[in-house]
Amino acid sequence: MSHRKLDIASLRPYCPYYAAAFDSIGRRWAATVLRALLGGATRFGDIATAVPGMTDKLLSQRLKDLEADGLVERQVQPTTPVRIEYRLTEKGAELGKVLLALNEWALEWIELPAEAG
Amino acid sequence: MSHRKLDIASLRPYCPYYAAAFDSIGRRWAATVLRALLGGATRFGDIATAVPGMTDKLLSQRLKDLEADGLVERQVQPTTPVRIEYRLTEKGAELGKVLLALNEWALEWIELPAEAG
Repeated sequence: MSHRKLDIASLRPYCPYYAAAFDSIGRRWAATVLRALLGGATRFGDIATAVPGMTDKLLSQRLKDLEADGLVERQVQPTTPVRIEYRLTEKGAELGKVLLALNEWALEWIELPAEAG
Repeated sequence: MSHRKLDIASLRPYCPYYAAAFDSIGRRWAATVLRALLGGATRFGDIATAVPGMTDKLLSQRLKDLEADGLVERQVQPTTPVRIEYRLTEKGAELGKVLLALNEWALEWIELPAEAG
């Protein structure tokens, strides 16, 4: 596994790994679901509450996509009744650090429309 | 303008600024176009070459979207013939640093299908 540092001065204009990453996290709601998990939500209902406007059906699909991408794992807790929890994998948690940096950028640069403020 | 640092331990599960940021960069090809600009492409044709599989029509639309989002600026160079250049704004360049970190994550964690390798 590489630990390549990228340098803007020698950056090639296209990277297929980066493009593939955005195929995954660019899907509608995907980044917001990841952020909810990063913020400590683990149960379906908590994630649903944390992502306003997303239907349960779409959340369910997105969680499956993120699981297939290796970013999220679904754990069945052997309680009665069983409790399903969603957690970031190591891959997802590492991505989470970058998403946090992106959130900091957003706080600094994004202006929300007045009605959302 | 704030310089808030986010702390995972006290992160709320949803942030409207972050969600708005992904409304913009989550659009198909948007992050790849930004990366091409980050990698030094300035002319429409160079960006088009750097983003395999995107039609010129879509690139044109995406550049307009990114301009509307304040991430990209379109400059008309007063040469003969005039030369149109696209550059990242300060807001876009700051985002670019985060996208570079995301690219580093992708190089470390994303596996491409064999046919793309």
